[in-house]
Amino acid sequence: MKKILNNPENYVTEMLDGLLKAHPDSLICTAGDIHCIVRADAPVSGKVGIATGGGSGHLPLFIGYVGKGMLDGVAVGDIFASPHAEQMLEVTRKINGGKGVLYLYLNYGGDVMNFDMAAELAEMEGITVKTVLVADDVASAPASNAKQRRGIAGMAFAFKIAGAKAARGGSLEEVVLVTEKALNNIRTIGVALSPCTVPRIGKPTFSIGDDEMEIGMGVHGERGISREKLQSADVITTKMIDTVLEELNPISGDTFAVLINSLGATPPEELYIVYRKIHEILTGNLLKIHKPYIGEFATSMEMSGFSITLFKVDDEMKTLLDEPSYTPFFKKF
Amino acid sequence: MKKILNNPENYVTEMLDGLLKAHPDSLICTAGDIHCIVRADAPVSGKVGIATGGGSGHLPLFIGYVGKGMLDGVAVGDIFASPHAEQMLEVTRKINGGKGVLYLYLNYGGDVMNFDMAAELAEMEGITVKTVLVADDVASAPASNAKQRRGIAGMAFAFKIAGAKAARGGSLEEVVLVTEKALNNIRTIGVALSPCTVPRIGKPTFSIGDDEMEIGMGVHGERGISREKLQSADVITTKMIDTVLEELNPISGDTFAVLINSLGATPPEELYIVYRKIHEILTGNLLKIHKPYIGEFATSMEMSGFSITLFKVDDEMKTLLDEPSYTPFFKKF
Repeated sequence: MKKILNNPENYVTEMLDGLLKAHPDSLICTAGDIHCIVRADAPVSGKVGIATGGGSGHLPLFIGYVGKGMLDGVAVGDIFASPHAEQMLEVTRKINGGKGVLYLYLNYGGDVMNFDMAAELAEMEGITVKTVLVADDVASAPASNAKQRRGIAGMAFAFKIAGAKAARGGSLEEVVLVTEKALNNIRTIGVALSPCTVPRIGKPTFSIGDDEMEIGMGVHGERGISREKLQSADVITTKMIDTVLEELNPISGDTFAVLINSLGATPPEELYIVYRKIHEILTGNLLKIHKPYIGEFATSMEMSGFSITLFKVDDEMKTLLDEPSYTPFFKKF
Repeated sequence: MKKILNNPENYVTEMLDGLLKAHPDSLICTAGDIHCIVRADAPVSGKVGIATGGGSGHLPLFIGYVGKGMLDGVAVGDIFASPHAEQMLEVTRKINGGKGVLYLYLNYGGDVMNFDMAAELAEMEGITVKTVLVADDVASAPASNAKQRRGIAGMAFAFKIAGAKAARGGSLEEVVLVTEKALNNIRTIGVALSPCTVPRIGKPTFSIGDDEMEIGMGVHGERGISREKLQSADVITTKMIDTVLEELNPISGDTFAVLINSLGATPPEELYIVYRKIHEILTGNLLKIHKPYIGEFATSMEMSGFSITLFKVDDEMKTLLDEPSYTPFFKKF
């Protein structure tokens, strides 16, 4: 295991300690638990609070999205493991500004179980909670069974849309509706080239041949839709875009926000080679690009590979996407 | 070679094509050469122009620093190879706003030869050019021979200081002086855990044991100061900080900007584990931290490892560091 760490048992707590020390004006922990992290100005009175949570090992997901115009708090689990319901509840209490709280997170079993439990406990304390699940990974289940899909990098758009609507004073119902509308128009597909190592386990999450890739593999190494010989960037990109576009049924003139996410080790250079091809395909089909988002949005430590997310946007979505936001990870130098 | 690419010969031009398509409002190429890239609003009249350049394979270096409050233009070479003098000259012509041009780049032989040639050609055309070299890598030569040192991630601070001073209307002489003052207080040291692959070559730049690291290795795989067994994050960090601090001779109360740069595959989680230790060491020595910069600033594609840069700052430097800037890579989400 070639990683920069101390005791693997402390990987997450030391990472969180470093994060809080790096961003003391933006992020604080609550309830004396370093796994419960909220905006330093939480609760924001009169604003819907937005909480997320999930396993570690995916920075900037989740903490990197906590900040003005985005999320209010996050419950942080161990590497690839759900946080506890009690931690989600603590975050909920701290970010409740009187207009209710939205749970917005990725569709994984452990997270769903714990967030549902936290929602029940919060309701018993008089805090209204609504839930929206991100399930954008088209490779993880067929469209006929879309609710079973896993959530991956498309969540960045969901966070932004929900966060912008809440910052504009939207009610809990309005924030839910606009986020669901966004997610109906967001689809993602990934490809993995190499695994990562969970510190506590000390060996790679899966094995793959030196000349192989796996289309649709999940960010924790979940089985994808096909393991194939590695092909050229243009061939891979075309295959991925075709799969995603098929579900979004675009017509001439439709506009898309495009997000290309590195899983970790795939360098920005290669993401731009991919974007070049996406630009060619979309504009060649008379589709428009609102804005590209290219970089690391949901990683798996040192895994290599990337995902492509397309978000079909109307004027409402474009306006919300372009609202200001400030988080420790997405700011000016 | 497990990379997302088409023909390796086209790696750089396709990457640049993708970059220009992604950021059409910010970046344009000039002289009909995709390797010559400048701010879309160049030249900025009445402002010192700042040009940099160097080999590809290090994003966000160099293009990611071109924008308001930072640099004006860049000549881009092939992977790990200097651009040509003629390309630097084209950039110089395009960014000259009447107050002269600063060449601010990293100290590598090929770049120095070509930039010096470009400076001569520019002077013959009546454009005043001054040069400041970044040579912050303490592992690449002893302090007694500091001018021979290579430049690495500390250049991000130099770009910011020079860019801010130029944006404030500083003269060419003033921009040179303040950048030299900054560089006198900037030191970097790196550690490498694994190599990267140059697409055209198709095999790793060096080999290293599964349980080894190399302290001080350069971003192109240049020999470092010691190859050792991989140690804990705290031990590695302490060793690196000690080396850097020794050169900066801090006294109680001195303030530092801290930059932790991933070489590519080392994930943000591990950079924060490193920051935790740096914070402990500096504050334990009664030194202050102005601000940490944690992420990817100068990478080597999929190489793993990181570097630490310390920048001893006074009030002038703090003010310039905190000036606004906008580039395609360092902006809000």
